[in-house]
Order: sequence, then C-alpha cells, then structure tokens
Amino acid sequence: MNTDLIDKPYVVGIDIGGQTTKMGIVDMRGQVLSQTVIRTDTHTDVDPYIEDVAEALDKIIKESGSEDKIRGIGIGAPNANYYTGTIENAVNISWGGSRTIPFAEMLSARTGGLKVALTNDANAAAVGEMTYGAARGMKNFIMITLGTGVGSGIVINGEVVYGHDGFAGELGHTCAVRNNGRLCNCGKTGCLETYCSATGVARTAREWLTLSDEPSVLRSLDSISSKDVYEAAKEGDKLALKIFGFTGKMLGQSFADFVAFSAPEAIVLFGGLARAKEYLYQPIMDSMNANLLPLWRDRIKIVFSQLKESDAAILGASALAWEL
Amino acid sequence: MNTDLIDKPYVVGIDIGGQTTKMGIVDMRGQVLSQTVIRTDTHTDVDPYIEDVAEALDKIIKESGSEDKIRGIGIGAPNANYYTGTIENAVNISWGGSRTIPFAEMLSARTGGLKVALTNDANAAAVGEMTYGAARGMKNFIMITLGTGVGSGIVINGEVVYGHDGFAGELGHTCAVRNNGRLCNCGKTGCLETYCSATGVARTAREWLTLSDEPSVLRSLDSISSKDVYEAAKEGDKLALKIFGFTGKMLGQSFADFVAFSAPEAIVLFGGLARAKEYLYQPIMDSMNANLLPLWRDRIKIVFSQLKESDAAILGASALAWEL
Repeated sequence: MNTDLIDKPYVVGIDIGGQTTKMGIVDMRGQVLSQTVIRTDTHTDVDPYIEDVAEALDKIIKESGSEDKIRGIGIGAPNANYYTGTIENAVNISWGGSRTIPFAEMLSARTGGLKVALTNDANAAAVGEMTYGAARGMKNFIMITLGTGVGSGIVINGEVVYGHDGFAGELGHTCAVRNNGRLCNCGKTGCLETYCSATGVARTAREWLTLSDEPSVLRSLDSISSKDVYEAAKEGDKLALKIFGFTGKMLGQSFADFVAFSAPEAIVLFGGLARAKEYLYQPIMDSMNANLLPLWRDRIKIVFSQLKESDAAILGASALAWEL
Repeated sequence: MNTDLIDKPYVVGIDIGGQTTKMGIVDMRGQVLSQTVIRTDTHTDVDPYIEDVAEALDKIIKESGSEDKIRGIGIGAPNANYYTGTIENAVNISWGGSRTIPFAEMLSARTGGLKVALTNDANAAAVGEMTYGAARGMKNFIMITLGTGVGSGIVINGEVVYGHDGFAGELGHTCAVRNNGRLCNCGKTGCLETYCSATGVARTAREWLTLSDEPSVLRSLDSISSKDVYEAAKEGDKLALKIFGFTGKMLGQSFADFVAFSAPEAIVLFGGLARAKEYLYQPIMDSMNANLLPLWRDRIKIVFSQLKESDAAILGASALAWEL
C-alpha cells in the first residue's frame, strides 16, 4: 500500500440525479462512513448548487472524522465528460441545460483543491462494481443499468471505455426494433431503453392491456409502474410474467450483439428493474444464447449487482476517486 | 529509436487465407521489400504446411538481405487467438478444422526462435491501418473489412480489443435484420454480413432480379458477383445503384450502433467491396447520421483504407510484429 492511501484512506462519492444529489464518505472496503442527500432541482444556476454541495460535504467529512484524510472526489452525473471534467447540455438537470459547465474544476476550487473525477452514472456504477461488487477481479465486462432509462458502462482490459469524445457506452440507444419502434426521449425510435427500462416495462404493460383483453390484476390500476408489474408477477399474474419474458428476450437479443463487440466475461445488471431478476434471468439467457455465435454460447455470464442499493450510487461514484 | 529497431529493422507479415498464404518482409515505413505466395489448401496437416511457410520465408529473407535483421513475425489468420497464439477450429482452412493448433509456437520453433504474434485478419488490418494507413494518429476507430464476409477490428485507446477470450470484434455477426433475415454461414439469421459483404451484395442482386422485372444489365449474366454489380453501377445501371444504396443504408444503420458502443473517431472501411466507395459513402453517411444520437451526428468520419490493396494483407499482419 502506498503512503498516499495511509495518509488519505477515504474518498467522497457524489451521485447527481435530476431531483436529488447523494453524497458519502467511503473507505477502501466500500463502507459508507457517513452520507447525506440534498436537492438538485431547487437551483437554476450551478454556483449556489455547488455551495450547497460543498456545505453538505463539510458536514459529513466532520461527522466521519475524515478531515485531511480525503484522497479525492468521484462524481456520477448525467452528460458528464470524463476527459474534460465538464457536464454538457444536461437537459434533465435544472441548472444543466444548453451549457458546458466545468464542474470538476469548480468543485475542486470550492473544496481546497481536492482532485475531482466525473463520469456518467452508468460508468460510475461499472467502476463501483469492479472495485467493490460483482465484477471484482473481472477485466472485461459490460455494466447495464436498468432504471428510468437503460445506461451502460463498458470495461475492457480493466478500464472504462470513454471513446474519442468521452461519451462512449450509450447502449440504451442502440436499435432494438428497426421498424415501427417506440419513440425514444432521444428523438430516435426503437431504442433498447424504450422497451427495457423501468419506463419501457410500464409502457409494454399499458400497450398489452390495450391490445388484448387478457385478465390481469394490472387492469385495476390507474397508472402502472414497473414496480406494479413486478408485484403482479410475484402474485403469479400471467400477463405480468409475459411482460418480463418479453423484456428479457429483448435484452438478451441486444446483449448478444454487445458480446460480439467486446467479448466480455459477463454482463452485470444493476438498477431498479434488475430487482426482478427471478423473472428476467432465464429469458435473457435463452435469448442471448440463441443469438450468440457458437463460440460464445453458454459461456457469457449474466450477473446481478451485489452492491447495497441505498449505497450503490455513492459507491460507484466514489470508486472513480481511487483512480485519481 | 531504440537499438532493437536499429539492429532489427524489419518484420515479417503473413496473411493466411483459405486458398493462399501471402508473406512479405516489411520495413518501418510500410515498404514491402520482398514478398511471395504459397498455397494453403494443398495440405490437410499443419506440419508440412509450416515447412512450406518456413522455406518460402527463408527465400524472401535472403532475397531482401534481411538475415538476422527480423524483429518478429505477425500473422493474420482466421480463428486466430491473440492471447494464446493458437488457431482454433478454423473450418475454412484445409488443415484447421476441429482442432486447436499452437501455430505461433510451432512457427517460432521452425524459424530459430523468432517471436510470433497472431490475430484474425480484420484485427491485423486495423493494426496495419493504424501503423501505416488511414488511421495513423487515431486512438479510437473501428475497422470494417468488406470481403467474402464482414470482419471487424476495434481499436480503443490505441489498442486492439481482444476481449476476455481473445475473439472480440465479430461485428459482421451482429443482427442487421431481426425477423426473416437471411441465413448466415454461422448458423444464425439476419447477420450484417449476409447483407453487406461482397457475397451479400451478390445475394441482394439475385434476390431483387427475381422479385422485380426492372431492366438491368445484370439480367444477362449467368452468375453475379459483387464486382459485376459494381461494373453495372459504373455504367449507370439503376438496379445496381439501388443495390449499393441499400447496402450502404444497412451498413450505416449498424455503424450507428457501433458508435454508441465505443464512440470512435472514425470507421475505416477496407476490402474488395470498399472499392465501391463512390456508391457506398453517401448512403452510409445518411443512414448512420439518421440513426445516431444527436451528440454524434455529423461527427463520425467514414474513411476508406489507404493501403495498397496488393500489399494490405501483408502490411496488416506485419504491423502486429512491431508490438512484440
């Protein structure tokens, strides 16, 4: 262990979401010593937001007794560019749209020169899983986050793929349905995330309820979320089970193409929808294997995240800081 | 320049194909000093084949006066595993099927201990293009070879992606048509290479001639190759032009998904079919941009190989040897 790790045995992880910002102090074994949450969406300007972040950080640093022991800060944020430390055109963040914000530099200045690394939340999750979770020891894997959208973080030879411009790994926007696909928030149609995100699952439910008159407990609900579909599946609701079968099939088809790209050891699933693993695992496996070249059939693992969900976003972001 | 490059300023490049094996002595600037060709398909056993290769090599090494000046040997071959130096289950090679051959080790033993690196031909082409060709200076690009099949070599951060098992980069077998797609040699249906290889273009021509009675000079031919379609397009044949438009559209759709994976600076096209660049470029660009996320639109280059075609296979393979 180098002296730096003895002097500075802690890192800060910050997960910036559209509504809230979670942050915590993390040690080398992935223990979250202290954490807090502030609102993201109460600011339209980034400067007072950074003030709030810095104040909240000061508080948890004191709480955990880690003054002068922080090695650096890792941030997971939408539209974050790892190369430049900027957040670019983050339309889902109240202070982020139509501008390029030198976020890493600004936060570093406000925290007495702490080093700051930032990337998008799926890449952060991949680093977190490699550092503390299901991908420990793996050098080649693909992290897929199944949340409101479908995000991805690709690890090749032990390193996250950032690409030429810093924005590599947008697998949620690869094409799952070429013709007459669902309209995506990105403006394209047929993107994987329109079918296989939490939102996509709810969309499938609403679509199928309209297209058939198959009985389902989902019919009694005013609005349907992916959680409702999961609860229905647990009760044995046939339509809900079919929806997960369909979602898993679509994921597996796309995963087969991802494998053809980087030949990973495993695909790691994370995020709210990944909780439905008992209904997703087998359909994903069957469909992925049916679409893989023979050389990869039955050889690629599907693994579910092992990080505690309440800590995962902070852990993922914090893991970036160990590499500073 | 290190002393090794002064003492050993040459490398050997060997391109193993199903019918012939090309080999040459190459200098640092990509000049082929001496080259020769032997048959691959006259052997059913690998030992006498390696004898033939070694004898032919001896001859061109003497011819070029490069005795004791060879730094190493690079080989491009089907089903070649970079990590292990083996050729595995190469069904298209007369001595290669249903076995794992420690080819690098065998050739090294037969050439007095020269170091040998081997990979598949598309990866070799990618290294060649990065070392001597259109991708010089690029750290992130995807090489697509449009030949009998569609091959690919992916470069991220200046390094070829081999993946967990050594076989990454099979983009010709990603799905281009999900339902009712053409049957592929690999056993799957709808693979990109069933549409966009030289064979795929000929297949499109035969299919379209049957499905319509549109006049075309192609109707007078007994059998149709992609070269015939190219010649017809050059004469202004409308059906032939439409075939290239369709091929380019399919390529562009798939390229958009590849970009979402690794955010490359460029996609580099190589191989016999890439000669039809005047008919492929615009359809590829239009379709790729229509399918890209806004952040990449009009920002990804499509580049055609700059290597002299007669030398390209040898150059690509030889480039591997500089990294030994």
